[in-house]
Amino acid sequence: MRSLDQLSSLIHYLRETENLQSAAALLSWDQETYMPPDGGAARAEQLATLQGMAHERMISEQLQTLLSQSIDLATGDPLPGEQWDPAARGLLREIWRDYQKAKKLPTDFVMRFEKEASLSQQVWVQARAKSDFSIFGPHLQTLVGLKREEATYLQYKGSPYNALLDDYEPGASVEGITPLFSSLRAQLVPLLERIRRSRRGAKARLRGPFDEERQLDFGRMILDRMGFNFREGRLDLSAHPFTTQFHPSDVRLTTRVSRKDPGDAIFSCLHEGGHGLYDQGLPKEYYGTPLGEPVSLGIHESQSRLWENCVGRSRDFWSYFFPKLKKQFPGPLRGVDLDLFYRSINRVRPSLIRVDADELTYNLHIMLRYDLERGMIDEGVDIGRLPALWNDGMERYLGIRPRSDRDGVLQDVHWSIGAIGYFPTYTLGNLYAVQLFRQAHCEIPGLSRKIERGSLSGLKKWLNEKIHRWGRLYSAAELIEQVTHEPLNPGHFMRYLEEKFGEVYRL
Amino acid sequence: MRSLDQLSSLIHYLRETENLQSAAALLSWDQETYMPPDGGAARAEQLATLQGMAHERMISEQLQTLLSQSIDLATGDPLPGEQWDPAARGLLREIWRDYQKAKKLPTDFVMRFEKEASLSQQVWVQARAKSDFSIFGPHLQTLVGLKREEATYLQYKGSPYNALLDDYEPGASVEGITPLFSSLRAQLVPLLERIRRSRRGAKARLRGPFDEERQLDFGRMILDRMGFNFREGRLDLSAHPFTTQFHPSDVRLTTRVSRKDPGDAIFSCLHEGGHGLYDQGLPKEYYGTPLGEPVSLGIHESQSRLWENCVGRSRDFWSYFFPKLKKQFPGPLRGVDLDLFYRSINRVRPSLIRVDADELTYNLHIMLRYDLERGMIDEGVDIGRLPALWNDGMERYLGIRPRSDRDGVLQDVHWSIGAIGYFPTYTLGNLYAVQLFRQAHCEIPGLSRKIERGSLSGLKKWLNEKIHRWGRLYSAAELIEQVTHEPLNPGHFMRYLEEKFGEVYRL
Repeated sequence: MRSLDQLSSLIHYLRETENLQSAAALLSWDQETYMPPDGGAARAEQLATLQGMAHERMISEQLQTLLSQSIDLATGDPLPGEQWDPAARGLLREIWRDYQKAKKLPTDFVMRFEKEASLSQQVWVQARAKSDFSIFGPHLQTLVGLKREEATYLQYKGSPYNALLDDYEPGASVEGITPLFSSLRAQLVPLLERIRRSRRGAKARLRGPFDEERQLDFGRMILDRMGFNFREGRLDLSAHPFTTQFHPSDVRLTTRVSRKDPGDAIFSCLHEGGHGLYDQGLPKEYYGTPLGEPVSLGIHESQSRLWENCVGRSRDFWSYFFPKLKKQFPGPLRGVDLDLFYRSINRVRPSLIRVDADELTYNLHIMLRYDLERGMIDEGVDIGRLPALWNDGMERYLGIRPRSDRDGVLQDVHWSIGAIGYFPTYTLGNLYAVQLFRQAHCEIPGLSRKIERGSLSGLKKWLNEKIHRWGRLYSAAELIEQVTHEPLNPGHFMRYLEEKFGEVYRL
Repeated sequence: MRSLDQLSSLIHYLRETENLQSAAALLSWDQETYMPPDGGAARAEQLATLQGMAHERMISEQLQTLLSQSIDLATGDPLPGEQWDPAARGLLREIWRDYQKAKKLPTDFVMRFEKEASLSQQVWVQARAKSDFSIFGPHLQTLVGLKREEATYLQYKGSPYNALLDDYEPGASVEGITPLFSSLRAQLVPLLERIRRSRRGAKARLRGPFDEERQLDFGRMILDRMGFNFREGRLDLSAHPFTTQFHPSDVRLTTRVSRKDPGDAIFSCLHEGGHGLYDQGLPKEYYGTPLGEPVSLGIHESQSRLWENCVGRSRDFWSYFFPKLKKQFPGPLRGVDLDLFYRSINRVRPSLIRVDADELTYNLHIMLRYDLERGMIDEGVDIGRLPALWNDGMERYLGIRPRSDRDGVLQDVHWSIGAIGYFPTYTLGNLYAVQLFRQAHCEIPGLSRKIERGSLSGLKKWLNEKIHRWGRLYSAAELIEQVTHEPLNPGHFMRYLEEKFGEVYRL
């Protein structure tokens, strides 16, 4: 049986490629956190160079030679007569997949795209500040053109959008997502209706000001409790919270802080902390290979949503942490008790901004974006009509209409960086999260009570064990089935919502 | 006459290489400012990969082909019958020089060196914290071995040390530096003796505490006045102040802040600001080519020392800025007047730490390091003896003896990153600085009075014009002669010291 030891030259090669990509990730992180305002044009060139070189390495003859020593390049199967152990077999399968895909993309295209994405993002920042889609529109047009070009190179099946989806959620397709979303929507909308009719509910709004430094301290304390290792990571501020990693020993989270509402920082920290635990939990010994990479964005998002929502918006969690929060902010929280606080962080109601949305309506925001992305990619929708289509969609799905581009079509960064096909993974993440959390409750004795006592390490270890350490050895579908003993089942998510909001709103 | 337009393929190639090096520079900056404590091992690998790739590009056949279209690769001369304008001629001359030099170094060596340097620096941090040279010694031994290996590859003339010097100060040699330093020392030591015998002097010491945030604000205000562009740069904290740039539009300064002594932050900001103005003043259109690079570290240091010392420790400067400083720190500066302050920042006396040394004794610190570096590289001195040699040298040159490695041989970062041959450029910078500042006074009408009124933009523009914009078009020696109409003349520096400290100490 052949093992990873026999792949050391290949692994060395992949690791050097990953070093380039890690450098690019640091350049992007810096762009969002510390880069001076006028450094952007040079940064775009630098990113394009690094991504271009990384791509060249992914399609090089050298890689082809290394691969051909172990697999049949036409099929990806092991050479006849050779037996590989599961880890080596998984590595070869996945790297062959990456290689096949990379080979379809011309380097010139990769560099053009990278540069355009870096510049568009900067234009989007300005357009958003001025709440004027027309500034950003031409750039989005270019990016959509590039993404369609990409889909053509990648030789999609079904619709061009499938090629893009596959980048973020390998194995996902329009054929699976569309009915999943329809059926989910058919259940979410009536539940939302029942909640809206409820007289009870969660009307409490917290009143600030909440000191920013104290909020950050509180966020760091939660992250520490979650088991996020600050010797191998850090927390910074950025306009939009995100997580990035350059190695499992260097994972960067960002958050934002609002003086009015401590929820911004708290839930960002929980959310990004969930991503961060995944990144820190990836096996260091496989850095640079598929076995050291997250399996899909849907699974990644399941980790963030599990911590943010299943844990972080639970009564268990706040039984322990609310007294601490109150100690930090005695003034603004005077007269607020645990129950009031719990209901205030679990208010369900249609709102304009995705990242501020509750657990239920969040998914309707995703469905709107999915529709529009399919429109842009598969149906050639005129980009100029996007603001109107957005607003109409909001009205149709959520019953409210944005009054500005800023609170509408310009709110998310994704399209500006060319991340089209990414949004559906958020809802997949929500579904996976609940399914995994349910399983954790089955397997970790007294999990509720542990969380109630502020002890989160058991859950973290369970996730390390069940999800993080496998890298891409199993596909997302395989992993979910392996851990929860059934395929993705949105029923768990719906039952979770029914139960939780049934109690909050006494439905 | 052929021009840069005919070199666009070459320039494009060089620019992509520079993009890799800029990425490496960001990785290094991050290592010193924000990297989490345990991120270092992965960072060392990433830096080695980037530097290895940059080196591969500098010795590639592609570059050789590009160069051979314009020059005779054996001599560096233009192809017969071709006339190039001065800019193109300068670019070709310098890139041929870099290419010839790079070709002598095996990529494997470059990567081994880069990785070892990154790791050694981290060991040095620990050794320094524990004040124990023995922890760092074996790493220094390895680095010295690597530097000697490098010198052999580079085929030095005279002594191996010359090969290393040339990296930082092209054209400098032991044959020039040794007599220069001897003659300077022969003048500095008697002046120091006269100052020590003076009864007057500058005994005032400032007493804190000085609020750190206010110090940073004050530093930023000075930088702003100097003309440092914060839209194309920033200021952060680090253990040891430094400046780095990823492009003229993204220049990063760091400083440190001491609650006890505002001088740390003020003079670091002036010093790094001087470096930063050079980096921001390099021509953007030549980014990535020798015409967009600083000419030598000696000239770079002349910019920092000019601002730190010639400007920043002058009575003119503080006539304007002292009242502002006093306004920021009314408590700690109660009872301190301009004269007392001026003398307190111009105290001359032997001290243990180079970066805290006055303008006179600073150069004796450099001479000690120069002796020891030559010992390590040219004479095979036993590394284990270094702490004793250091302490003996301090006693011989400055009459004081460190009581710990921390305040002795472990104080500087340079050796830990393999920067051997770098120190002499500091004293060259001091000499160049005074010579340039003297010339600025000749050419800028009323410069003293302008500085006295806080107007620093004339000086900045003069430096932009005379130094920064030329990149490497002229050598350091040519540039100094072109600007000051004479070669490097240490007499100006000695006269400056005699005059300044003659007044302060009433000699």
